[in-house]
Amino acid sequence: MKIGILGYGNLGHGVECAIEQNSDMELVAVFTRREPKDLIIQTKTASVCNIFEIDEWKDRIDVMILCGGSATDLPEQSPFYAKLFNIVDSFDTHAKIPEHFHAVDMAAKEGKHISIISVGWDPGMFSLNRMYADAILPEGKDYTFWGKGISQGHSDAIRRIKGVKDAKQYTIPVEASLQAVRNGENPDLTIRQKHIRECFVVLEDGAEPEKVENEIKTMPNYFADYDTIVHFISEEELKKNHSEIPHGGIVLRSGVTGMEKNHTHLIEYSLKLDSNPEFTGSVLVAYARAAFRLAKEGQTGCKTVFDIAPAYLSAKSAEELRAQML
Amino acid sequence: MKIGILGYGNLGHGVECAIEQNSDMELVAVFTRREPKDLIIQTKTASVCNIFEIDEWKDRIDVMILCGGSATDLPEQSPFYAKLFNIVDSFDTHAKIPEHFHAVDMAAKEGKHISIISVGWDPGMFSLNRMYADAILPEGKDYTFWGKGISQGHSDAIRRIKGVKDAKQYTIPVEASLQAVRNGENPDLTIRQKHIRECFVVLEDGAEPEKVENEIKTMPNYFADYDTIVHFISEEELKKNHSEIPHGGIVLRSGVTGMEKNHTHLIEYSLKLDSNPEFTGSVLVAYARAAFRLAKEGQTGCKTVFDIAPAYLSAKSAEELRAQML
Repeated sequence: MKIGILGYGNLGHGVECAIEQNSDMELVAVFTRREPKDLIIQTKTASVCNIFEIDEWKDRIDVMILCGGSATDLPEQSPFYAKLFNIVDSFDTHAKIPEHFHAVDMAAKEGKHISIISVGWDPGMFSLNRMYADAILPEGKDYTFWGKGISQGHSDAIRRIKGVKDAKQYTIPVEASLQAVRNGENPDLTIRQKHIRECFVVLEDGAEPEKVENEIKTMPNYFADYDTIVHFISEEELKKNHSEIPHGGIVLRSGVTGMEKNHTHLIEYSLKLDSNPEFTGSVLVAYARAAFRLAKEGQTGCKTVFDIAPAYLSAKSAEELRAQML
Repeated sequence: MKIGILGYGNLGHGVECAIEQNSDMELVAVFTRREPKDLIIQTKTASVCNIFEIDEWKDRIDVMILCGGSATDLPEQSPFYAKLFNIVDSFDTHAKIPEHFHAVDMAAKEGKHISIISVGWDPGMFSLNRMYADAILPEGKDYTFWGKGISQGHSDAIRRIKGVKDAKQYTIPVEASLQAVRNGENPDLTIRQKHIRECFVVLEDGAEPEKVENEIKTMPNYFADYDTIVHFISEEELKKNHSEIPHGGIVLRSGVTGMEKNHTHLIEYSLKLDSNPEFTGSVLVAYARAAFRLAKEGQTGCKTVFDIAPAYLSAKSAEELRAQML
């Protein structure tokens, strides 16, 4: 299976690592908007190409994994490249998924290719677990908690404040609320009751900490609705203790069964990830295998994780799966 | 969707409850080896029939859910009824799944029907989670812990001991081992290190507790390899505190990513079930929906949970799933 990567940031690098762990696939080329000779990748056997050369690779790549961002890259790139290649993307703007699906579906059908969108852990594995749990326990309530982990968007928002040199923001589930869900109490939780936001901030020389702290804590959408903790630390400390990109979270569904609805069940799926981009890359690569197989069967159009039978993700045969994993 | 239930024990009753919670399906008949007039079911609109009349229902039932046991019922019933109906079963003898699959697949193809075998939580939802996690993190190790919950087989084994009037056995994961897995230590665990067996036993008049306790603790396969705790209690206490059928468990996979394998990830799926048969019944019913849809598409033969795209289980449309759950 010959794989291409479009976009070589943290996620592109995570995908590269994941391909290395799967012996049935090979990274053949990385496409970048940067100057190819300035980009050093880790796979010695793969080419680095400018994105303008991508057309020439049409028949040499089985699946193209799109590693751009959801804000501006993927809404353009996914429909565009879906005409030329089988693609997998990690589009994660939940509210715009139906629109994105429609655009990619049209393009993929026109190009007679398969596309799989919104792959990763949320959307992705979390979506799958929400859906399975909802199908099994139709009378219930579901909850998604994120963290403990770095939120890129919130870290960026702090960095845009005047006087801030650098910053990292951790999203942390509120333990008491999580416990209430696990106890089957089915609480109605406010935004504040679900997550805490903890910020590690490096100030520019001469900046006023009280002012910066106040600006963070009152920032609409990002922080104002949360309990926010701000720590001011040195640049060295930020580099030493906060340069990794961990994340994770928990999906829970609490539901009832029985003629008297007297039995409660709790389904819980949790992820603790040392590296968000490497884990997301690993999910993308498993779905690239699925895309390859679906394309071989002659299927076309856009799919999501809901549409793909689990066995398509696995390198193991149907017989092996039944004997070893069922 | 018109559903039939074959076998009305705890599981059959659990399936009946689950059908009641799904407005797109209707229980039309329960088939029993008992005298139909002696069997009181809870669904007023459904018929109770002797198993010998089942042929007459061939064209009146969309999916037959087989609720017999895996030891002797399902190995015969599933291949037999797979010729006549679309079926779903919960065959759970892991080692014999390949053989069972083959027999059911032949029969279902002959009858031009669809069969889904080994549906429930283990095999079933646990298998799915083992498989997804293995596909995403190919370099890792997986663990399955069961409990806290009632093991029917172990309770039965105690009841067969001379001097025992009644008994319930709980399987309990060893907390320290679970914690070691969660810490990413990838321990090699012996049988004893994974589970504790706690037994609540009611003695016959005149039975010797020391003798019974010794017989339990030394019983090969069932207890000898475990740390086993035995409590002798009164019949009233057993009835009062141990008459429910809770169960559950945890599937974990700990794996590494990165060119240096320096990032560890933990995927954890857990179930806490007040009623094992009602939850298993709920999973069977969701897969009955899938069987109905696959049959409508003209698919035939035997499938497992690995072969079925998640969306087939849900009462929601593809558009609703993308908008609400992705």
